Amino acid sequence: MARIVQKYGGTSVGDVERIKKVAERIKATRDEGNQLVVVVSARSGVTNELLARARAVCEFPSERELDMLLATGEQETIALTAMALHGIGVDAVSYTGGQAGIFTDKVHTKAKIKTIDAKPIVRDLEAGKVVIVAGFQGINEEGQITTLGRGGSDLTAIALAAAVKADKCEIYTDVDGVYTADPRVVKDARKLAEISYDEMLELASSGSKVMQTRSVEFAKKYHVVFEVRSSFNHNPGTIVKEEVAYMEKVVVRGVAVDKDQAKVIVSNIRDKPGSAAKVFRSLADANVNVDMIVQNVGRQGVANLTFTVPQTDTAKAVRALEPVLAAIGGGQVTVHEQVAKLSVVGVGMKTHSGVAATLFQALADAGINIEMISTSEIKISIVLDLDRADEAARVAHSAFDLDKV
Amino acid sequence: MARIVQKYGGTSVGDVERIKKVAERIKATRDEGNQLVVVVSARSGVTNELLARARAVCEFPSERELDMLLATGEQETIALTAMALHGIGVDAVSYTGGQAGIFTDKVHTKAKIKTIDAKPIVRDLEAGKVVIVAGFQGINEEGQITTLGRGGSDLTAIALAAAVKADKCEIYTDVDGVYTADPRVVKDARKLAEISYDEMLELASSGSKVMQTRSVEFAKKYHVVFEVRSSFNHNPGTIVKEEVAYMEKVVVRGVAVDKDQAKVIVSNIRDKPGSAAKVFRSLADANVNVDMIVQNVGRQGVANLTFTVPQTDTAKAVRALEPVLAAIGGGQVTVHEQVAKLSVVGVGMKTHSGVAATLFQALADAGINIEMISTSEIKISIVLDLDRADEAARVAHSAFDLDKV
Repeated sequence: MARIVQKYGGTSVGDVERIKKVAERIKATRDEGNQLVVVVSARSGVTNELLARARAVCEFPSERELDMLLATGEQETIALTAMALHGIGVDAVSYTGGQAGIFTDKVHTKAKIKTIDAKPIVRDLEAGKVVIVAGFQGINEEGQITTLGRGGSDLTAIALAAAVKADKCEIYTDVDGVYTADPRVVKDARKLAEISYDEMLELASSGSKVMQTRSVEFAKKYHVVFEVRSSFNHNPGTIVKEEVAYMEKVVVRGVAVDKDQAKVIVSNIRDKPGSAAKVFRSLADANVNVDMIVQNVGRQGVANLTFTVPQTDTAKAVRALEPVLAAIGGGQVTVHEQVAKLSVVGVGMKTHSGVAATLFQALADAGINIEMISTSEIKISIVLDLDRADEAARVAHSAFDLDKV
Repeated sequence: MARIVQKYGGTSVGDVERIKKVAERIKATRDEGNQLVVVVSARSGVTNELLARARAVCEFPSERELDMLLATGEQETIALTAMALHGIGVDAVSYTGGQAGIFTDKVHTKAKIKTIDAKPIVRDLEAGKVVIVAGFQGINEEGQITTLGRGGSDLTAIALAAAVKADKCEIYTDVDGVYTADPRVVKDARKLAEISYDEMLELASSGSKVMQTRSVEFAKKYHVVFEVRSSFNHNPGTIVKEEVAYMEKVVVRGVAVDKDQAKVIVSNIRDKPGSAAKVFRSLADANVNVDMIVQNVGRQGVANLTFTVPQTDTAKAVRALEPVLAAIGGGQVTVHEQVAKLSVVGVGMKTHSGVAATLFQALADAGINIEMISTSEIKISIVLDLDRADEAARVAHSAFDLDKV
């Protein structure tokens, strides 16, 4: 007998038929003698419907009331999932985030989990019940409903797995697991059997949409081993954990492409201490998320500063920069939205040199120009022309033999 | 400055446009300097949609999970209403039933309110906020979400009015108030400016759909004066309270017709002690709601027992009676569904004789046959042919001069 936490995302519980299928899957796991905590998201589409209604009554809805509103999405799903289990003879009980003892800070719409009081859940598990918990939501000290922000249901599952000391945590989603590259772009991309937290983190922050980084960070911090797998088939997924077998041998684990980037160039600024600080302070104050940064000093003490931001932040970035341009020497701001970021990720990189050389050579051979470069211990990212991004992914994938087991 | 509780039903908050209209109405009341608690229902149709999904996943959904599911309907409305108020510059905060301190017993889907801890609401009122409370729901001692059953949102409003010691309680609905008869049937029906709790109770239990009896009973018990009025216009409604002006003069206050009745006849039963008890015990055990009862003893100790039940309970009643027929002398059960119940109600009846005579004479003059008669202190009810019910309402209305002020 094992204690298992399963999480089903919005598409997995998208309608009543799918909820019934999820119930069958839960029953099968329960019938093997396991104790089971199940975290569910809102049915796909529901959150957007609720947001549309919110915007229809108020241009800038309050975050407390948004949480109150959005929390209903998961609450509906937990009740329907528990009912579907009852319908096939499985004893089950639903918990809202608050009932599950998920206490958060007071930051509405992106609350952080502070503690989980798992005693009621453990009591129900030991009484033989399947416990269904609303993902994405918690409660603060004052009894206010909070939500955890993007990827919140994954976080709920991983945090509960830590709290109930689960033997396994399974994140069911609409993809089969983590691939060496996006299979829609790179035909011979392979599903990885295992991946380390750090690699998963770098892939997530590099545009792989499987999971948000915060859930992976939480899992790493609390040593929660989890598996990403599909709720639409029974294929094994990808296990995410601290140390991965054969880690030494594999240099690059995967290739990720992020097409949601824009490149911003601040040109002709005075090259003196404080100019860059002024630029990034103004961006930070405007909550613009800056990713890669490159600075070139040209002739006569005039510098160009180049960085990337999410495309949704471009207008905000330009607005934030206008007032500081004069103070830093009266430069110009140029935006290129037709760019993409390609990253190759692998823990093995730490001890292998030549990864950058291999990547740059392969791209050069294909005639693909590199506009920016940034590296971390286990990742190399480049910015390139959006039109060449998919081709670059295929080139990189093959340069590191990722199509071979 | 007054402290006011307003309740808006499902049609009043049926979509985002109507929610914005309700917000305007709330703002107007607030701008007059009043403290305001607003109780809202689920948007009309939402509860039925949720129930349909519940039935799609499970034939007999558990009542605990039904409450978990249905409570989301009001939770959505409170958040949207608070947002709509923010959008027009009104400080407002939403409360679920549990957050509003509405503690109930443990009976899911038809919980009774035990206590209300109104301190948080009063604190917010005194801080100048409009408090929006989810109707129909509460929380039990164990922190489980409960719902109050039919008419639950009215009950929430009236109970909160008692708890916060409100000066006024306004029940906004899709009708203008309480009428002397159904205006769709009786053209010259008049809206009543005032009505007593007892008359309102008798009208409610006699088929007038304005409110459920339990909310009126609660208001009577806690001396909550409330007004029933429309959210779609600004007409004054009907005030419901203990003593009504000119009560002595008015004999009959209104006429109500209930077309949802069936007449059940148990014939040829042995007229000996215990027969009737057996019949009604078996009906009570099957949760059949029996209304009017008449017994005639015929010749040779053989009796007929006639009673009315809601049409939805007819099949259940017949099934419940089958096993007892042998024990009471082997009678037959006959059902007539083509009947209606007409009631005339008025506190003034207590001190005036002749009401029955006037009613029966008027119906006789119109050639309408009376099948059953039952009376209470302030009500006379008769059962008659369904096809003649509307005509009978008009005849009774005019016989008691209800068309005259």
